Amino acid sequence: MNATHHGYADDQKKIIARLNRIEGQVRGICQMTENGEYCIDILTQISAVNSALKSVALLLVEDHLNHCVKEAIEEGREVSEAKIAEASAAIARLVKS
Amino acid sequence: MNATHHGYADDQKKIIARLNRIEGQVRGICQMTENGEYCIDILTQISAVNSALKSVALLLVEDHLNHCVKEAIEEGREVSEAKIAEASAAIARLVKS
Amino acid sequence: MNATHHGYADDQKKIIARLNRIEGQVRGICQMTENGEYCIDILTQISAVNSALKSVALLLVEDHLNHCVKEAIEEGREVSEAKIAEASAAIARLVKS
Amino acid sequence: MNATHHGYADDQKKIIARLNRIEGQVRGICQMTENGEYCIDILTQISAVNSALKSVALLLVEDHLNHCVKEAIEEGREVSEAKIAEASAAIARLVKS
Repeated sequence: MNATHHGYADDQKKIIARLNRIEGQVRGICQMTENGEYCIDILTQISAVNSALKSVALLLVEDHLNHCVKEAIEEGREVSEAKIAEASAAIARLVKS
Repeated sequence: MNATHHGYADDQKKIIARLNRIEGQVRGICQMTENGEYCIDILTQISAVNSALKSVALLLVEDHLNHCVKEAIEEGREVSEAKIAEASAAIARLVKS
Repeated sequence: MNATHHGYADDQKKIIARLNRIEGQVRGICQMTENGEYCIDILTQISAVNSALKSVALLLVEDHLNHCVKEAIEEGREVSEAKIAEASAAIARLVKS
Repeated sequence: MNATHHGYADDQKKIIARLNRIEGQVRGICQMTENGEYCIDILTQISAVNSALKSVALLLVEDHLNHCVKEAIEEGREVSEAKIAEASAAIARLVKS
């Protein structure tokens, strides 16, 4: 773990806990499908997972802006523009996903 | 597994395979977070999982319309309106997720 | 207006009223941009328009299933499969938009 | 127009042009609905407008990060945290819209 590489140190445990729960939800959806459960019930669970994943992603975006992007700008590093372009591209992928 | 309850019989194996892969992807994202990998790389993976889940959901929607909804309408069952309302609500949840 | 072509006859006035309101909202966003108003305020309005458009779209989807798709299936028309494939493709575009 | 309030000065003309085009698209969708055109064709246009609006929004997000947020951080203003929280909330509304 490298403090200079990620900005979610303060939220790391929370994010891991949420991702573990999401992994369990996906496993549950897989099991529902194997059991031949009703399409609509599976769809409802998939929508719930999508929302949960987006919440995790939005937390990561905020942490990234608050740390990685903020530090790049504070240090006046030439990379600050590249950092913002990179963050914007990641946000675009999320919005379109 | 109850043929009268689900409409994805023909795609069941494909859906299970895709969900298994998605479960692995989520586990991988969890591992990346534990390793303190870079925020942007995690965000990219989350966006990929969202897209993959939406693809599975859209396949389920089509199967549901082609079987569950179609059969309800063909049988002229009174439930056909309820069936369409139920499908529409599931599609709305997906669109908003 | 051709009753055989569209399924939103009962909601037509409501949909037109909503689209008129959305058109006004987009014009307002355009005006905000010309006035050099704050980015975040413009973004908030764009998100509101997106949600409003999705609501109209979901109403159209439900009307389409309830009328166009239902009639195609009831008439046992060969086109019923094509009709469902067409609806599914439209739902997919909406989900991915 | 106030340079301290918005970060999209360089893209203002482009954004206005795109919003004007989107306004015209919404007017066209309204007209299609009045003409009783086919549900699916209207849905396709709505999805296109959603994508176009998201593109404008993502351009605004990048401009906002590159100017408003960057300046707040560079000036070491106490408001920089509030600025990032505000941007994150706007991104969240966009992602969920």
